[in-house]
Amino acid sequence: ARPRVGYFYTGKTGSELLTEKIKKFKVHEYQSVPIVVKENVSVYDAITTIFLEDVGTLFVVDDQAHLTGVLSRKDLLRASIGQKDLSAIPVHIIMTRMPNIAVCRKEDPLFEVAEILIDRQIDGVPVVKDKENGLEVVGRITKTTITKAFVELVTDTDQHF
Amino acid sequence: ARPRVGYFYTGKTGSELLTEKIKKFKVHEYQSVPIVVKENVSVYDAITTIFLEDVGTLFVVDDQAHLTGVLSRKDLLRASIGQKDLSAIPVHIIMTRMPNIAVCRKEDPLFEVAEILIDRQIDGVPVVKDKENGLEVVGRITKTTITKAFVELVTDTDQHF
Repeated sequence: ARPRVGYFYTGKTGSELLTEKIKKFKVHEYQSVPIVVKENVSVYDAITTIFLEDVGTLFVVDDQAHLTGVLSRKDLLRASIGQKDLSAIPVHIIMTRMPNIAVCRKEDPLFEVAEILIDRQIDGVPVVKDKENGLEVVGRITKTTITKAFVELVTDTDQHF
Repeated sequence: ARPRVGYFYTGKTGSELLTEKIKKFKVHEYQSVPIVVKENVSVYDAITTIFLEDVGTLFVVDDQAHLTGVLSRKDLLRASIGQKDLSAIPVHIIMTRMPNIAVCRKEDPLFEVAEILIDRQIDGVPVVKDKENGLEVVGRITKTTITKAFVELVTDTDQHF
């Protein structure tokens, strides 16, 4: 009879097991709530929102609630030193705009989103759902999400392969 | 004779091996170069520096090059919407100040710094070296560092326990 507890030989090294485990983490298991603003909101109000909601990235949507842009703390900081009246500038002027936005979907592996964050040097990516005429924003993955996932690798007591 | 390659039974589960592996990552193996400004630099110049160096956190030092403060993108954004002349405000007015700064040292485990980033809701921590009358800043660990370490867990081909 094979033992009920303990290690089963699989022919894999610990490193391979580790890689396999992490590759199974899915976006929807880790995503946070997205904070969304409309395109005609002012840069000033977007900055207020980023502080109130305590996030690093806002997602911008049109009247059909489809994703049209992304606003990072960096975008807002750049705009804020422009010496103009921030309450008179709508966010669609300064946002990163579709199709130049990296997105992910809920079944994507988390590590692929982590790669996107590093490769594109961005802080956050929207989790989207495909709609007939656009993308609905349903979540967010950020460097904070990945940092939490990293900590859980060490501290979770109920981990298993 | 025992085989030269393959898996050696250690009585540990894959999960335990994973935890042990990650616990061995040290700060000095992952730290980046710190970007430092002096206390009397203006907020405007600090914002310029954060864009030029493309970092999320600046460390502030006194004339002896000892750590006295930390400036995040969030601190700078908050100051920049204050409608004042940013070139007239020195950074020591708005920075987070010692002893309220989380620090780490080069032999600390990386995951402990990741925990600090999450628990204190900050983007970066200075790596310091103890000096007679203060702390010298020798590196930085940020959420970007942790995200890179997470990606390497999956993509590194020369990993081993």
